[in-house]
Amino acid sequence: MADSELPTRPKPEEAPAAGGEGETKNASKKAAKKAAKEKAKAEKAAARAAQEKAQAAAQEANDTAKGLYGPLPESEDVISSTRFSQLSEDSQGKEITVVARVDNARVQSAKLAFLMLRQQGQKIQAVIAAAEPISRQMIKYTGGLNVNSIVQITGIVKKPEIPISSATIQNLELHIRKVYMISEAAQMLPMQVKDAERPPPETNEEGEVDAEGAPIVTLKTRLDNRVLDLQTETSQAITWISSGVAELFAEYMIKSGSRWIFTPKLVGAATEGGSNVFEVKYFKRNGYLAQSPQLYKQMCIAGDMENVFEIAPVFRAEDSNTHRHLTEFAGLDFEKTFENHYHEVLEFAENLLVFILSQLKERYASQIATIQKSYPKAGDFKLPKDGKALRLNYMDGVALLKEAGVDMSEQERFENDFTTAMEKQLGQIIREKYDTDFYVLDKFPMAVRPFYTKADPKDSRFSNSYDFFMRGEEIMSGAQRIHNIEELEASMRSKGLDPTQEGFEDYLNAFRQGCPPHAGGGLGLNRIVMFFLGLPNVRLASLFPRDPQRLRP
Amino acid sequence: MADSELPTRPKPEEAPAAGGEGETKNASKKAAKKAAKEKAKAEKAAARAAQEKAQAAAQEANDTAKGLYGPLPESEDVISSTRFSQLSEDSQGKEITVVARVDNARVQSAKLAFLMLRQQGQKIQAVIAAAEPISRQMIKYTGGLNVNSIVQITGIVKKPEIPISSATIQNLELHIRKVYMISEAAQMLPMQVKDAERPPPETNEEGEVDAEGAPIVTLKTRLDNRVLDLQTETSQAITWISSGVAELFAEYMIKSGSRWIFTPKLVGAATEGGSNVFEVKYFKRNGYLAQSPQLYKQMCIAGDMENVFEIAPVFRAEDSNTHRHLTEFAGLDFEKTFENHYHEVLEFAENLLVFILSQLKERYASQIATIQKSYPKAGDFKLPKDGKALRLNYMDGVALLKEAGVDMSEQERFENDFTTAMEKQLGQIIREKYDTDFYVLDKFPMAVRPFYTKADPKDSRFSNSYDFFMRGEEIMSGAQRIHNIEELEASMRSKGLDPTQEGFEDYLNAFRQGCPPHAGGGLGLNRIVMFFLGLPNVRLASLFPRDPQRLRP
Repeated sequence: MADSELPTRPKPEEAPAAGGEGETKNASKKAAKKAAKEKAKAEKAAARAAQEKAQAAAQEANDTAKGLYGPLPESEDVISSTRFSQLSEDSQGKEITVVARVDNARVQSAKLAFLMLRQQGQKIQAVIAAAEPISRQMIKYTGGLNVNSIVQITGIVKKPEIPISSATIQNLELHIRKVYMISEAAQMLPMQVKDAERPPPETNEEGEVDAEGAPIVTLKTRLDNRVLDLQTETSQAITWISSGVAELFAEYMIKSGSRWIFTPKLVGAATEGGSNVFEVKYFKRNGYLAQSPQLYKQMCIAGDMENVFEIAPVFRAEDSNTHRHLTEFAGLDFEKTFENHYHEVLEFAENLLVFILSQLKERYASQIATIQKSYPKAGDFKLPKDGKALRLNYMDGVALLKEAGVDMSEQERFENDFTTAMEKQLGQIIREKYDTDFYVLDKFPMAVRPFYTKADPKDSRFSNSYDFFMRGEEIMSGAQRIHNIEELEASMRSKGLDPTQEGFEDYLNAFRQGCPPHAGGGLGLNRIVMFFLGLPNVRLASLFPRDPQRLRP
Repeated sequence: MADSELPTRPKPEEAPAAGGEGETKNASKKAAKKAAKEKAKAEKAAARAAQEKAQAAAQEANDTAKGLYGPLPESEDVISSTRFSQLSEDSQGKEITVVARVDNARVQSAKLAFLMLRQQGQKIQAVIAAAEPISRQMIKYTGGLNVNSIVQITGIVKKPEIPISSATIQNLELHIRKVYMISEAAQMLPMQVKDAERPPPETNEEGEVDAEGAPIVTLKTRLDNRVLDLQTETSQAITWISSGVAELFAEYMIKSGSRWIFTPKLVGAATEGGSNVFEVKYFKRNGYLAQSPQLYKQMCIAGDMENVFEIAPVFRAEDSNTHRHLTEFAGLDFEKTFENHYHEVLEFAENLLVFILSQLKERYASQIATIQKSYPKAGDFKLPKDGKALRLNYMDGVALLKEAGVDMSEQERFENDFTTAMEKQLGQIIREKYDTDFYVLDKFPMAVRPFYTKADPKDSRFSNSYDFFMRGEEIMSGAQRIHNIEELEASMRSKGLDPTQEGFEDYLNAFRQGCPPHAGGGLGLNRIVMFFLGLPNVRLASLFPRDPQRLRP
C-alpha cells in the first residue's frame, strides 16, 4: 500500500516533544495517550474509506444506470434542447432534452424522487422512478442535486395524474431518463430563488418568515444577491420590459429619421449645477460625469443634425435616498428642430410615449401579467382611449387641484411648482376625470425651469416647457430651448449664472454661429418601467441599481 | 428729447476731480479740455445717429421690398418648407420656401447678389436681382448676410443657364422673393465650414494655406470647433454611418431574441487591471468607471438572461495618444449562452458583423460616396463574396506572416500576440489572398487573453477566443468564458490575480450558484466606423472625442 493512500503516521521526531521546564510527566503521558487515540481513529477512518470505495465500486459495477447520470460526458454529439415555452399538449409521449436549473429536489423514497426544473422563471416538474435501467443510485443522485444547479435532462413528456399547482406548466411533467450536471451550485446559497419569487415586503422591516411561515426576502437581500434575484419569474419579466422600452424608443426615433448620437459622459466642467455632479480624476486634472446630454444634444442641433436621440447612462450625485432616485440611470434623450411652433416637437414626444406604452402592452402582455401577480396594487396602466395624449396647461393643473381643495398661493404657483404629493394627487384627479394614467402638462412657470428654457413669448411668467407624467409621477421634462445667443446669455444672468464661466464657452459658441429653433426632452427609462408596472421601488427596475449607499454588486 | 435717447453729459460732480496733492494746475486744465472734446464728440455722434435714422426711415418709406426681408416676422401662419433633397427637375417654376444656412454671400452689383445655401452639407445657389418689388436695399441686405446665418427664403425654382459647379444641386437654382433671418451668425467665425469641407492634412503640420491658396483646417481646429465641423457634408455623412452601426447592431440583436441591458458604469472596484481605470469621488468613498461591461454581462448570463446586449460608453484611462485610441468610446457588447460549442456564438457574431457591414453599404450608399470624395485612399470596403465571414486560426495567421517573411519566435507566438504592424501586414496578405477586408482569427494563445477566458480543452496553450479585424485592425475581442468557479479561481491565480480581492466577490458568487456555458464579445463602434470608411483618425468617427489631451468641447 503506497504511503500517499493512507494517512501517514507521525514520524518519531514529529511526536509531541516531552519535557520542557514547566511540563509534568503527566502531560507527557497524556500526549502519548492522545497520539495513540489519533492513530486508532485514523486507522478506523482508513478502513471505512476503503470499505466505502469498495462498496461504491461494487455499486457502480451493479449500477444499471451507469452513464445515464453524473458529470456531463465529453462528446462531439450535437444536442438540441427544447425550451419549456415550446412544450404543448402535443409534446406528450415524446422524448426531449432540456437544460434547466434545479429549483427544488426531493427524494420521496429509495425508488422515487422529484425535481422542480426552472427556465427563466418558468417551472415544470420532473420525476424519476426506479425501473430498468433507472437505479436506486441514480434516484439518490437526482434527488440530492444541489438547488440552483444547471442540469441537462432527457426524459419523456407525460400528463400528470393531477395538475402540478406549484409549476408554471401544470399539465405536463417530465419522466427522467438521463441527468447530467452542467454547472453545480454550492450547497448553501445566500437566498433561495423560490423565496424571492414572492415580492419584497413594502416596508423594509426585517423579519425571518411571513404569516405563512415562508422566509421573507427583503429588497436589500435581493439587491445584494441580484444574480439570484434576476432568476425569478418577476425579475425576468421586468428586465424584458426594460429592454422593450429601449427598443421601442429607438424604433420610434429611427422611423422618424432621427440620428443616433453618442455624446461624451466625461466633461471638462460642471455646467449644470455644480453640487450634484460626480468628479473624476482625468489624468492630471479634474473631469466630471455628465448629468445629462442636454448641452451636447443642443450642440448637435447647432451642428445641423436636426433630429437626434441618445440612449446612455445619466449620472446624478444627488444624496437622495428615496424610492425613486438613482445615482445612475438609463437616459432616453431626444432633440429636434421645428418649423413653426414647439408644439410640433411636443406632439412628436406625446406620440412617442403613446407608442412606447401601447406597444409594451401589445408585445409584452405575458410579462406584464407575470409582474402583476407580484405587484397587483397599481392595476393596469390606463392609456387615453383615442390614442392621443391628454395635454393640459400647468395652470389647468393648478385649477384642478384648487377644485379638490388644494390651493397654492400666487408665489407657490410661480416659484415652487407642484410638490411630489400634489403631483400624485393631480394624477388621481386626472385618472378619475379623464381615465388615463399618462398625461402632459405644458407651460410651466419660467422660474422653475433651467436657463436654456424659452420663455412663453405671450406671457413671460410662463415658459414653452412641459413635463410628462405617469400615474402622477414625472417621467420626462422638456422644453423649447433658447436658440438666440443674446437671449441665452440674458437668461443665464437672470438665473445667476455667468456666461463667461469656464465650460460654457463651447456651448455658447454653438449659438454664435447660428442655431435653428428646437425643442426636446429627456426620459428616465427606469422610471417609465417603474410607473408603467406600478413597482414600489425604482431599484426593481434597474439591473444593478446605484444609490448613495449602494455601489455593488 | 428724452434723456435716454442721447448720450448723457457727465454731471458736474462726476467731472474729473481737480486737485489732490501731486497734481498740477496743468492737469486740471487738461481734464477740462478733455471733457470739452468729449462733449463735442458726443454731440457730433448724436447728430450723425439722428441723420442715419432719418435716412433709414426715408429709405424704408421708399423701399418697395419692405416686409419681404429682414427679421422673421411674427406670424401665426404655418409655413411648410421644402428640403433640398425633395427638389427635382419637376420643381422648376414652382415657388418654394427653404430654411438653410448661408454658406456664402456675394454682392455682384447694386442690382444683383448671390447666395450659396447649405442644408446638412447639401448646397444650392440662390440669386436675387433688382426687379419690382425687389429693391436695391433688399439686394444689399441679402448679399451682406453673415456667413452661416440660418435664413428662411422663398423663391422660384429655375434652371440656371450653366450648371452651378460649386453646388451639390447643380441644375437648379432659387430666384429669391423673400429673405428672413432665423438665426444670425457672428461676423467672425473661428473657421469656415466650406474650408472644413476639404479633409484635414494627414500630418498635423500647421500651415496657413494649401497649394491652391485655400486655408488649411487642421484636425485640431476642426475638433476645437466641432459644431461648425459637424456641418460639413463629410461630417454629416460620417455621423449617419455611426448612427447606422448602432441601429444595425440593435436590430440584429433584437431579432435574435437578445435582451437590451444597462449595466452600471459606476463600479466599486477596479477589477479589470487597476492602472487604466478612471477614479470617481462617490460621496464619501472612491468609485471607478467601468472599463467594459464584461463582468456585469456575465452576471446577467448567470442570472439566466441567456442572450443580452448593451450599447454604452466604455471608459479607458489609457495614456495612449494614437490615431485609434479614445478614452471614452461607444461600446457594443453582447453575451450569449450556447448549447454545444462556443462556435455557435462565434458564428452568431460573424453573422452580426456581415449584417452590419453589408447593410451599411445598402442603406447608406450615398453617405459612403460622399465620404469617399474626401477620404478615397482606403477604397471600398471588401466583404466576403459568399456572405460568410472568413475564419482562420491564430496559427494560420502566424503561418501566413511566415510565408511573407515575418517570422515569430516560439515565445513571441505564445506570449506576445501580433504587433499592430504585423496585424496590418496580415490584413494586406488576407486581402490579397481572400479578397476581403473583414475576417476573424480564432484560438488565440491563452497567455495573451484575460483571466475569464476559457482554455482550449484540447491544447491548453490556446484558448477558445477570437478577434475580429477590419482592414487589418482589431475591432472586436471575444471568447468563451470560464463558467466553472474552481476553474475561474485557478485561472485568476495563474494570472497573478487574487480571487479574494475586494470587488471580485459579487462576480465570483455569480458562478458559485451555477452558470451556463457562454461566450461573447465587445465591439468598438467608433473603430468600426473608422475602418469601414478608411478614415485616418478615430476622432473623426466620434462626435466629441475624448483623449488624454482633450476634454472639450
